[in-house]
Formats: sequence, C-alpha cells, structure tokens
Amino acid sequence: MDARRSAGRFPRPGGEDGLTTDDRFHREEVQLANRNRGMPLEGLRYPVTPSGMHYLLVHFDIPHIDVRSWRLRIGGAVRLPLALTLDELKKRPVVTVPVTMECAGNGRALLEPRPVSQPWLVEAVSTAEWTGTPLRGLLDEAGLRNEAVEILFTGLDRGVQGDEVQHYQRSLSVAEARREEVLLAYAMNGRPLEPQHGFPLRLLVPGWYGMTSVKWLDRIDAVVEPFRGYQMTGTYRYSRSADDPGDPVTLMRVRALMIPPGIPDFRTRVRLVAAGAVTLAGRAWAGRAAVARVELSTDGGDTWSPCALDEPFSPHAWRGWTCEWNATPGRHALCVRATDSEGNVQPTAQYWTRQGMGNNMAQRVEVLVE
Amino acid sequence: MDARRSAGRFPRPGGEDGLTTDDRFHREEVQLANRNRGMPLEGLRYPVTPSGMHYLLVHFDIPHIDVRSWRLRIGGAVRLPLALTLDELKKRPVVTVPVTMECAGNGRALLEPRPVSQPWLVEAVSTAEWTGTPLRGLLDEAGLRNEAVEILFTGLDRGVQGDEVQHYQRSLSVAEARREEVLLAYAMNGRPLEPQHGFPLRLLVPGWYGMTSVKWLDRIDAVVEPFRGYQMTGTYRYSRSADDPGDPVTLMRVRALMIPPGIPDFRTRVRLVAAGAVTLAGRAWAGRAAVARVELSTDGGDTWSPCALDEPFSPHAWRGWTCEWNATPGRHALCVRATDSEGNVQPTAQYWTRQGMGNNMAQRVEVLVE
Repeated sequence: MDARRSAGRFPRPGGEDGLTTDDRFHREEVQLANRNRGMPLEGLRYPVTPSGMHYLLVHFDIPHIDVRSWRLRIGGAVRLPLALTLDELKKRPVVTVPVTMECAGNGRALLEPRPVSQPWLVEAVSTAEWTGTPLRGLLDEAGLRNEAVEILFTGLDRGVQGDEVQHYQRSLSVAEARREEVLLAYAMNGRPLEPQHGFPLRLLVPGWYGMTSVKWLDRIDAVVEPFRGYQMTGTYRYSRSADDPGDPVTLMRVRALMIPPGIPDFRTRVRLVAAGAVTLAGRAWAGRAAVARVELSTDGGDTWSPCALDEPFSPHAWRGWTCEWNATPGRHALCVRATDSEGNVQPTAQYWTRQGMGNNMAQRVEVLVE
Repeated sequence: MDARRSAGRFPRPGGEDGLTTDDRFHREEVQLANRNRGMPLEGLRYPVTPSGMHYLLVHFDIPHIDVRSWRLRIGGAVRLPLALTLDELKKRPVVTVPVTMECAGNGRALLEPRPVSQPWLVEAVSTAEWTGTPLRGLLDEAGLRNEAVEILFTGLDRGVQGDEVQHYQRSLSVAEARREEVLLAYAMNGRPLEPQHGFPLRLLVPGWYGMTSVKWLDRIDAVVEPFRGYQMTGTYRYSRSADDPGDPVTLMRVRALMIPPGIPDFRTRVRLVAAGAVTLAGRAWAGRAAVARVELSTDGGDTWSPCALDEPFSPHAWRGWTCEWNATPGRHALCVRATDSEGNVQPTAQYWTRQGMGNNMAQRVEVLVE
C-alpha cells in the first residue's frame, strides 16, 4: 500500500484545506481528543508530572514491540553501522533529567478559522524525568561520515497522513542531534517507558516541541541530503496559506499556564472561587531560552502585574510562579503571560498559522467569585 | 458557597435540557475530552491495561492529598467509628485482582439527540490489577448498626454539578457493599495509585460502572436512609425524559470491542487494511454476568458469525476473543457484538437515554481494504 494508492481515500473533515469557521467541532476532532490526552491543568501543581497524567499525542497507533527481538539500528552515512539491544543501550552512560515537553499544536482549538486536527486548548504540556543515554555518544560510536548533513529518526508507528502511507519520521541537523542534552530515553519517572510513551526507546530533544522526540525508535540514519518527508515538509510548518511552505516548527515558544483556582463546574469548567485572598500558581517555560517574567491580568488582559518566579529546578523544565490575588465578587477573566530571556512575550491575540502550530496566546480562565 | 447560591450560574451547553441534535460538538465537550481520556483501542491488546493508558473520567478536579495527614474515616451508624492511616489499611488482609472498569457514559457521543457531557465514543473502558483490602472486613471492624441501610462513600473531590456544590458522593446498599469482591484499593498494577486514579485510596466495585468506584476516599458512613444526593438522583439514571426519574445505573451492560485492524488515517481514524487473511481480536465483558458469545459482522450488522473466546483470566475482567476474516478489496464496516450469560445481546441501534448512560450499541469500524 504505497502513498499513491491511498491518495484521496480519506476525505478531510473541514474540506480540502482542513480549516473550519464553525465554532462547533467535527466528530473526527472529538475522536482524536478521546484518544490523545492533555494534562488536566491542576497537574501544573507537580514539578514532575505523574506519568499517567502526562499529555499524549500519537499520530497513528501505539505499536506493540517485543523487546526480545527489537534492535535499535544506526546506519546510513556512518563508518560502523550498529544494531543494539535495550540492555546494550543501558550499558552506555546514563543521564536522568527533568524535561518539559509541549505539543506544537497546543492552542490549536482556540484559533479562528480552526485547523481540523487534534483540538488542543492549552493542556498539551507536561514534565517528566527522563532517563537514557546521550545520542552523541552513539553517533560517535557509529562514526558519522563527513557527508552526513542530518540524522533521520524512524519510529515503528505507521499510518496514513496527508494521503501518504508512512512510518513516523523526523530529522535533525547533525549539530542539533549532537547537542549534549539530546537523549535516547528508555525510562520515564524512574520506570521503563509505557507503550504509549515510546517503549522500548524514544528520542528526547529538550527545548523542542514534542514532534521531534520520535517514539518507538526503529532506525537512526545519517543522511547526506536534508530529509523531505511528510512530517518535515507537509506538517509542523508555520505556514499562513496553502502556497506558503512556512518556516519549520522547532523550539517551544514561551508560555505560562495557571492552575485554575477554586472549584470547577463539571460541564463548563468555569471556576467558582470564594471571595478574599487567593494565591494563584502555575508554571512557565520557553524552549531553549529562560523565562524572564510572568505577569497576571485580572481584567482580561487590559492591565498586568508581575508574578514571583520560583528557582529553576532543571535547565530543561518549566519554572513555577505564584501571584496573590484579592478576589472580589463577580465574574473575572484571569490571564497569565510569560516573557522569555530573548524578549519574546506571549500575545493576547491568537497566533494564527494554517496548521495551528505554536499558538501561545495567553491563557484565559473564567472565574465566578462569590 | 452552598448549592442555592451557585444555582443557574453555569448555563448548560445544549440548553436547559442539555441535549443537542447538532452532529457538531460544543467547545465544552471538547474541553472535557481533552481532560478525561479514553483507552486508545489498540490498548485492547493488553489483558491488563498499562496504567497510563487506563481511561479516566474525573467530575471535578484531581485533588492533591497529603497522605501524612490523610485518614479514612468510617462512621455513621456504626458501633466503633474508625480513622485509619494508609499504613494501617495496608496491614489489613491484602487482595489483588484484575478488574475491568467502564464509564457509564461510554457510547454517549454516538447518540442522537446527544446529551452534552463527556463525549465518549466507545473507548471509556480499561482493566487494571487492583490491590487493596476488602471493604467488608472494615465494616465488620466498625460494626454496622441494624438500622444501617446503605454505605455512603465521600470523595475529597469537590465541584459544581446540576447547580449543586458538592463533594463527589455515591452510596451502595449494605448487601452490595458487603460483597467479597468490593475493595478499598491503594495500588494499581503493582504501584501506589497515581493522583488521577484516587490516591491514596479509592473504592473498587467490580461489575459496576466506574461512577460507583469513588476515588480519593475521605469518609465511609453507614446511613439509615437511602442517600439521595446528586450523583444518585440527578445523574447516573436510565431516564428517557425530563420527568422520568429512570432506573439507577448499576452493573456494566454487555459489550465487545475490537482492536481496529490495519493502520489508521491520522485525521479520520479510518483503517487501511491489506487484502487477505486478517485475524481480528478484542475483548468482551458483561458486568457480573459471563460473556456467552461474541459475533462478528463484516457487512455492517446484516449477518453475524461466531468468534472464538479465550479462557477468562479473572472473574471480574474482560475476556479475549479472536475471529478470522478474509479481507477483500473495498470498503467494509466491521461490527462486533457480545451476548451475556443471561441472554442480553448488544443492540445494533443506539440505546438512547437522556443522560447517555449504558449505550452498548455494537461497535462499528470502517475499513478500506486494498
């Protein structure tokens, strides 16, 4: 079943351009939301997200892999191709580090018009303590040839996207792949990866959006031409029209989120808060940059006041923040926004791109104070 | 903030009756689907669902509980009220058992008209190996008084539903609560409960839909009148109109699900299957009854053929099934249905109730064979 033969067989909800101006959602979007999962925002309370609360985005199906026959193959433009068992990988140098990961599509469902895909609001982010071995060491073992320009990562998950039958594949420049923080991870929060997080082995690229951290690794190949596969050229682009290729999606854009205060209404998730002093808290992160500032607005984004920042607990993880609020009776829209060390600040208006990538619009939480 | 003061402050999407005939979904439904999570159907491959793949339905927020100050309080119409630490509970007799749990609202989003709530299609079911101590032993320790008619379970999760501010509370008759398989569970798949599954302690009632297995237990009280709280009388009812109280939702209704064959299209989840022999597989369960029969239809439900049943591996868990299918080129709608030992068979038409409870309509999987 090659790409050509599947072409056009799966009509896109939202029409060929995959966009909708309907504020109601397609069944296909709900189907994806029931499969994938965000982190309930009260999970922001934990510096390291409990494994089962970690957000999850799976393009195809979660593969079932027999680790006894599984090998990580490293090949392509290398002097010494490798085929390693999980036990052999565990004998390599071991690194454990907390890393915040966010889906590039986080915020997509807030866009208008809306790209029809996984309908994230703001909850597609989490932090886990990942354990693995640096990729660089294995690339050195294999010996990259001079003509290698990129490292291509191929997962064992397979399906159809953009009318192409494909294994999930993403590439990184040799320089990015050789950064010291890039890991081949086999454990999450002190336990072997569960199937949905990439068992037995996944790539982990701190600072980048999650699509880069390829799960269920099968092969790692040094390639002599930039990889042009669907997940590089057909999606994960900041394109603004059908004929705009757009820039590639790379590092996570600055964002802060708050733990919604008070208690929720089941259906609407609107918050009910008791009048008086409320300590608001949450987390903020910014790709490879530092979080410089977090600000709170209690009037829907008209005015902003500074929040206190906790000390960072990992160079690759989110940073806690807190802010005091005197809750007065009535309805309020609480907003939080962060600024990174390069001066990038979250917008209060949507950041619209055709695939709904990197929309880091400031979070808005509706509260009713009584 | 009592019930009266929150009344009417949270307008229901879908209007006052909470029903919609729109096949598009409200933002509130998507918001719930991003928070709660189904089990990806390929997870049916595992007899015991990996913890992080287990379905999850949380009415309010996931509470954060300090186990050092937490106590389980057992009181009401008992001779000896108790307040027990988690360590004290772990000193009681220990039982470990695989249990299949399903959300009573599973199948709700397939209904027409559709109740606006968590929009499950068919994925709200999982099986875990739960460890805990039988509730009966603790009720005997406390000594139920003769006037006790029900046992009331109160969770630490709190919010607004049906315009009532409430802790999540459900009750069981004394006879149901004293059944030997009813556990107070503190471990799941060999590890302490994660916060989202009820840490430090939850009720586990095998055979019943999930709403009965109250998470984050705070109190267990013997009561002398049937409990009439919102989660007993305002929801979890098989009501067919606004003025029909309906029967209470209790045991899981018979259902079979299949692992969708082949590979998925990302957006539509339609399956692409290679022509030829395909072994279809899945799981079936039926509350407290046994699964008597599982049948497959490859023509959308017109004709049915029997599937092979695996041996049960737990009296309280789903049962595996397999079926051979000769996939011929073209589009097919695969359906599976189960029959329980009491002769109940899954319908091929929706089972409509006003809150979308117990809709065990036979699963339908669209496949494209090439």
